[in-house]
Amino acid sequence: MVIVIRNGAGEEQIAALEGWLVEHGVKPSVTVGDKQTIIGCIGDVSQIDEGRLMAMSDVVASVKRIQDPYKLVNRQFHPQDTVVEIPVAGGAPLKIGGGHFQVIAGPCSVESEEQVLAIARAVKSAGATLLRGGAFKPRTSPYAFQGLRREGLRILSAAKAETGLPVVSEIMDPRDLPMFDDVDVLQIGARNMQNYELLKEVGTNSRKPILLKRSFSATIKELLMSAEYVLAGGNPNVILCERGIRTYETTTRNTIDLTVVPLLHGKSHLPIIVDPSHATGVASLVHPLSMAAAVIGADGLIVEVHNDPPHALCDGAQSQTPEMFAAMMDGIRNVRPFACR
Amino acid sequence: MVIVIRNGAGEEQIAALEGWLVEHGVKPSVTVGDKQTIIGCIGDVSQIDEGRLMAMSDVVASVKRIQDPYKLVNRQFHPQDTVVEIPVAGGAPLKIGGGHFQVIAGPCSVESEEQVLAIARAVKSAGATLLRGGAFKPRTSPYAFQGLRREGLRILSAAKAETGLPVVSEIMDPRDLPMFDDVDVLQIGARNMQNYELLKEVGTNSRKPILLKRSFSATIKELLMSAEYVLAGGNPNVILCERGIRTYETTTRNTIDLTVVPLLHGKSHLPIIVDPSHATGVASLVHPLSMAAAVIGADGLIVEVHNDPPHALCDGAQSQTPEMFAAMMDGIRNVRPFACR
Amino acid sequence: MVIVIRNGAGEEQIAALEGWLVEHGVKPSVTVGDKQTIIGCIGDVSQIDEGRLMAMSDVVASVKRIQDPYKLVNRQFHPQDTVVEIPVAGGAPLKIGGGHFQVIAGPCSVESEEQVLAIARAVKSAGATLLRGGAFKPRTSPYAFQGLRREGLRILSAAKAETGLPVVSEIMDPRDLPMFDDVDVLQIGARNMQNYELLKEVGTNSRKPILLKRSFSATIKELLMSAEYVLAGGNPNVILCERGIRTYETTTRNTIDLTVVPLLHGKSHLPIIVDPSHATGVASLVHPLSMAAAVIGADGLIVEVHNDPPHALCDGAQSQTPEMFAAMMDGIRNVRPFACR
Amino acid sequence: MVIVIRNGAGEEQIAALEGWLVEHGVKPSVTVGDKQTIIGCIGDVSQIDEGRLMAMSDVVASVKRIQDPYKLVNRQFHPQDTVVEIPVAGGAPLKIGGGHFQVIAGPCSVESEEQVLAIARAVKSAGATLLRGGAFKPRTSPYAFQGLRREGLRILSAAKAETGLPVVSEIMDPRDLPMFDDVDVLQIGARNMQNYELLKEVGTNSRKPILLKRSFSATIKELLMSAEYVLAGGNPNVILCERGIRTYETTTRNTIDLTVVPLLHGKSHLPIIVDPSHATGVASLVHPLSMAAAVIGADGLIVEVHNDPPHALCDGAQSQTPEMFAAMMDGIRNVRPFACR
Repeated sequence: MVIVIRNGAGEEQIAALEGWLVEHGVKPSVTVGDKQTIIGCIGDVSQIDEGRLMAMSDVVASVKRIQDPYKLVNRQFHPQDTVVEIPVAGGAPLKIGGGHFQVIAGPCSVESEEQVLAIARAVKSAGATLLRGGAFKPRTSPYAFQGLRREGLRILSAAKAETGLPVVSEIMDPRDLPMFDDVDVLQIGARNMQNYELLKEVGTNSRKPILLKRSFSATIKELLMSAEYVLAGGNPNVILCERGIRTYETTTRNTIDLTVVPLLHGKSHLPIIVDPSHATGVASLVHPLSMAAAVIGADGLIVEVHNDPPHALCDGAQSQTPEMFAAMMDGIRNVRPFACR
Repeated sequence: MVIVIRNGAGEEQIAALEGWLVEHGVKPSVTVGDKQTIIGCIGDVSQIDEGRLMAMSDVVASVKRIQDPYKLVNRQFHPQDTVVEIPVAGGAPLKIGGGHFQVIAGPCSVESEEQVLAIARAVKSAGATLLRGGAFKPRTSPYAFQGLRREGLRILSAAKAETGLPVVSEIMDPRDLPMFDDVDVLQIGARNMQNYELLKEVGTNSRKPILLKRSFSATIKELLMSAEYVLAGGNPNVILCERGIRTYETTTRNTIDLTVVPLLHGKSHLPIIVDPSHATGVASLVHPLSMAAAVIGADGLIVEVHNDPPHALCDGAQSQTPEMFAAMMDGIRNVRPFACR
Repeated sequence: MVIVIRNGAGEEQIAALEGWLVEHGVKPSVTVGDKQTIIGCIGDVSQIDEGRLMAMSDVVASVKRIQDPYKLVNRQFHPQDTVVEIPVAGGAPLKIGGGHFQVIAGPCSVESEEQVLAIARAVKSAGATLLRGGAFKPRTSPYAFQGLRREGLRILSAAKAETGLPVVSEIMDPRDLPMFDDVDVLQIGARNMQNYELLKEVGTNSRKPILLKRSFSATIKELLMSAEYVLAGGNPNVILCERGIRTYETTTRNTIDLTVVPLLHGKSHLPIIVDPSHATGVASLVHPLSMAAAVIGADGLIVEVHNDPPHALCDGAQSQTPEMFAAMMDGIRNVRPFACR
Repeated sequence: MVIVIRNGAGEEQIAALEGWLVEHGVKPSVTVGDKQTIIGCIGDVSQIDEGRLMAMSDVVASVKRIQDPYKLVNRQFHPQDTVVEIPVAGGAPLKIGGGHFQVIAGPCSVESEEQVLAIARAVKSAGATLLRGGAFKPRTSPYAFQGLRREGLRILSAAKAETGLPVVSEIMDPRDLPMFDDVDVLQIGARNMQNYELLKEVGTNSRKPILLKRSFSATIKELLMSAEYVLAGGNPNVILCERGIRTYETTTRNTIDLTVVPLLHGKSHLPIIVDPSHATGVASLVHPLSMAAAVIGADGLIVEVHNDPPHALCDGAQSQTPEMFAAMMDGIRNVRPFACR
């Protein structure tokens, strides 16, 4: 951390600031120039709030943080890749991260047992290894379909029992955790990425893998800080997910920055997957984007597949048909050997 | 709603789409041109999901919505301003909206009884009419101060008992609602603007005024849709709050668009206030921005004031001192008579 | 400037870097910590390219700049406000900046002599002190009206001769400078803010006031660097103009951040005006936004006025009528005495 | 085009609007509902300015455009891919587009003859087919290196003479066109994408291929409209280039949206290439991003390569070494057979 001293600050004020820093456990080093004085801080500055320094505005002109504010998710302190394991009934667990690539597929929302079973069978035969499906749906409008809730979770369990595919589903309310007993991976949606009470709940009271989606307006640092909440609670099993950010461009629903895949792999040891369906909102773009994500080094994909997109209760426009999905899986198998990891 | 037909779609397909529309309660009107066919839909299209239409991609090229998706918050169906009333012990209720302007002031977070009392007295004497203070704090880092929680609410009650100022405080978890019994206005923070389970809770199980902050990445439409959740639950007492949006510009913490004040007044009957402290993150900018907000027609302000900003446990850099706040209130009194409402 | 050393860099490498810095005229000060080494640089670092340091990626992890990269436009080295003077035929020059407030008004584009004269008379009688009008129009579409060009400039001269109002008009091509002989203020439009060849031309070969509009995607620093181009060429007469930036919000054409007015006044001595017409794109929002801009401390406004908006050849939707403009001027006169400067 | 009529507009007003539309060559079709009236317009609406309709605010509530505003670049009217040809001395021309993939490589700026020759030989032997190099450099700071200008162009000619590689270089000023006689592809940089006078110059007075970079704040529609300027001038040889857009995320210099590659291929027949160097600003990210671009269907790449990045006069941090470039070319050769086009 580097503190730039305000021009005109007196020696006493600077000395007082140095004392404050020592008191808070860091070692200050002052450099005095003709026009500018700066203090370099070495040590554990993670406990020091930039805002408190900025508020000392008679002596502090600006503060530049050098170290990352996250620790448990930081690759610097945990150089090897985290491999998250997802239990499979009567078999070896599925692995994601550290070279293990998985494809999660299924409908946006659970609509009926027939629908989910049909899609589950189709995506399994095309090569998907986990089933997704929303029982609780965050919808912009209170008048839109909000999900089958408890009944949706029951249907997912039935599909898992039949196909053997572990299940991924979104949790929106900390009170619902007990209901998710038979769900294998808990998804935290983009809109809840900074719902800290929910993050604390799944970090403290669960050890299931957490699929944490990047909010469409979160910086990479904020995504990692939200993951830090889960790990700080005691749950080390976090899978990060890029699903596009909000920009001025409105031709696609969101703008996906695939560069975050290698970037996040540099900053964190956690696996990172890509959601091409929400990123684009357009079914025909899912195939090319998925192949690009596989090549750039993603540890997996989460893709929406529906057996009857025009009659889907949500997000039909971005859902692939089982046929499109199977073709995409073929493409991915072709390029995965050349992936940048 | 206007549906643009895909070039090459057959007459049968178009007829089927017309049938589907009639079935869903709208009246389609087809216009056939040389190069393009469009269907205008008249009637209640609020139940029709654009996504479902878009998924019929063999016949539908694009969908343009003309009517607003929100109803209860829409000025079109409720032309007069909503005036939200906040009860005051032993007196007439405070009013906000419809020409009534209120200033909410207080510390970012409740730190101690002495602190809150001192600040409450100071802002009251300068003209503030409500006291703000965070007992539960949404912090980006799990290692940052998370608020005094239940004890913080007790302190706010004590300050209210002494000063008579009604209290505004943020709720983050639906399970906490009973604890907020003595809080007069429930704040939903920017990060929880799309925490729909929380919105449903305060919409359905409370009739207290809800101060709903715009997420730093929400469109105006999304803000109004989140307010619609509260009204749809049965609680009509919503106060909207603009606090800056996230843009590429990083000189200030957020970019505040004051234009949303007259814009929102045109679209909705709900009162709209401005938070200049979070919008800028810089104490010295709060005064000019507050005056501009007052002139452009805001129904109130929510401002952070701290009696010792350098030692504030959060957001010291953006907190005004009581002296700065008093000077600002003088400025606002000067320009309010000329405000654009 | 602070240079963070890459973990693992050897002492020799660090010493070599120190030598390089000394050679480039700065004084390095090394602070060695357990986990991190940083070099503080004191002196004139404006000549040091961050990119070159970043490219030494075996030894440099990151670079944090502390000093502003701009000099001539920096208030730090020029504490008093710049007052730009615009000559007036047969009278004292108009002043802008340093407490002097001016309103520039007129049509988006020059359409005919009758039109310009009628508008010029109307805005003058309402209190405008300069006439704006586009003879060269930057249009997104090659098929849109591109301006009357040389004939447009002739019409502006005629209007100036009759009304005495100095004239502001946009220049888009460095080859056109001689044609602008009778134009009093040269406008550089938002799309040309980083057209450096044009900035050099008007900086080196003109001493007329330059109205420099912020690009809708420029940071504050980039705006000031573009102004620095003009001053570096020898022309000190620059007026900055905020006209809204591009964000994800599409309800208004652009998002205007009025906070830049006090921010820019802190960073630079140049006058700063606001363009509420382009910022919003909606005529009815121009009045409230202009009043807010006046109160927050802008040194002037540039407003589009048209005597027949429905038949304007460009930007009719954002043009005020002369009546709206006169009402707005009344409002501004009311609040100007209380402006935050 | 669909026009939504303002509630309360009278029949006469609507009839007058219909008349106006007929007069402007379009066929209006009115649909009257209980709450809303809309007019669908069929025919050539490209000449109708939305702004003029919006300005008729007593009768028009809003306007929704259905047809694209661009014609010559639109795939709808030119279904087959454009293949741009670049002449090669004494050989068959290079082709780009329509399945032909080319890699342009070289230094950010031309620094010396030795430098350019060394890099040109290296990139040629690794498989690059065109040489890039900046002689005129758009720099944010007037104090940064501005390029060798005429001497830089001479050096590029020399490198071309020796290696046979056609040359790509940026033009910034319409007055400079004659100097670019021996340059094979004229680059229009991101900052000049809406410098319409420059676009007209290279559209009207040149038939060389134009490499048109997307501005970091341009929508896809704006990029295509700028290309339309060149084609409207008479020059059909435009290569589009995506190089990242400006978003709130600052970890990388820009956010590149690779989805624009398939999107633009759907909307336009022009070839589209990707610039991974400017998109990320970080050399180590160029390799993975280039492979993803190749797989998603780009028609080529433009990459910065420098033989001594730490001493590059500009953009060293994002320049690959010749060794990195050669490894990247190997990777691209592996995945190109599976590309999504």
